[in-house]
Amino acid sequence: MTEARTEDDAIRVAVSAVIFSLRASDDGDRLMLPLVRRTREPYRGLWALPGGWLGVHEDLDAAAAHTLADTTGLTPSYLEQLYTFGDVDRSPNRTISVVYWALLRSDLVDAQRSAAGAPENVEWLDVDAIPPLAFDHNRIAAYALDRLRNKVGYSRIAAGLLPDEFTLAELREVYETVLGRRLDPSNFRRLLEGSGELVPTESFRTGNHRPARLYRYCSES
Amino acid sequence: MTEARTEDDAIRVAVSAVIFSLRASDDGDRLMLPLVRRTREPYRGLWALPGGWLGVHEDLDAAAAHTLADTTGLTPSYLEQLYTFGDVDRSPNRTISVVYWALLRSDLVDAQRSAAGAPENVEWLDVDAIPPLAFDHNRIAAYALDRLRNKVGYSRIAAGLLPDEFTLAELREVYETVLGRRLDPSNFRRLLEGSGELVPTESFRTGNHRPARLYRYCSES
Repeated sequence: MTEARTEDDAIRVAVSAVIFSLRASDDGDRLMLPLVRRTREPYRGLWALPGGWLGVHEDLDAAAAHTLADTTGLTPSYLEQLYTFGDVDRSPNRTISVVYWALLRSDLVDAQRSAAGAPENVEWLDVDAIPPLAFDHNRIAAYALDRLRNKVGYSRIAAGLLPDEFTLAELREVYETVLGRRLDPSNFRRLLEGSGELVPTESFRTGNHRPARLYRYCSES
Repeated sequence: MTEARTEDDAIRVAVSAVIFSLRASDDGDRLMLPLVRRTREPYRGLWALPGGWLGVHEDLDAAAAHTLADTTGLTPSYLEQLYTFGDVDRSPNRTISVVYWALLRSDLVDAQRSAAGAPENVEWLDVDAIPPLAFDHNRIAAYALDRLRNKVGYSRIAAGLLPDEFTLAELREVYETVLGRRLDPSNFRRLLEGSGELVPTESFRTGNHRPARLYRYCSES
């Protein structure tokens, strides 16, 4: 990642990704993102977003997906370009970073990590407790989190964080975790049932509580 | 724009802009964008979006603004990064293009153009009659138009296309022009008056019709 480039006028192009998932913690499900411990200068030893250089024969979208797979062993259920960061002073060498953001269903994270052989220098950290990161990656992570919180309000983005079928309570908990605040259960139910976005299934979640109907998002709306 | 680069692995970074304004035509106000006639290969003689190379000592946002000023003499009232286009085959030499989009109040276009000395190879074209453009610029223009049409629905983006004060009919016409369809005047009035976004002024637009009250957007909402 730190090979010297001799051309004075060279601008290097990196691709990075911010991936969100809900992960179990002592404190219930938390919104987390995977970070990679840097093994080289600059910022050796600090956490950074997963990323790499754009290959000259590679489309941007493809680079984002394979960089993510290489650094973390993860294949997200949703991957979208977020923003390109290009301030002159964001890196010791002039580098612009095309940033993608992704959602990963929590039930797939562990399966993917065992299949790929989880890289040792990757760790999931709570979005509310991100340490100082390399480069301008704190700013990038904050920007991605802001986008996620805005987007969850007016779209079915929560579907990227859940299995195909879920109870209304589970869906509400996703919203609560992402937004970082409690929502009124009856208002939430009324809003979602009235949205025409959810389809009730014939299945129920059973357990300690009374059975709760499972829903899925309708395929097109 | 076409200097050969010798490094096999070089990826070049361009900055382009899609600027929208409402311009008078025989057919009433139309949504238009400025295009630049290319004077060099590749695509010599074709229209292209205003743009240029990112300077190695230049922030991305600054490059977008000054590129726009250099190629068109325009300073938009609103300039925002849109998307970075980076398919391998989008240009004969590997080039990623960081695209910005902008809105320009129609009353400022002519003033700015006369002040700057309007470049001869720039022309405003109707968004519904864009000819085949250089590179993937048709795709980029379509993407920007889509974003504008989506955004006008849930934000005060129309303010970037209007003078500070306007009648409700003028505001409705902006929406109609951008969306490409008629809106019901009484529904529109009710919706906007109920939104809390508009502040009535004490001024009226007079002319051939009965006087119409001028409104402005409230400064923060």
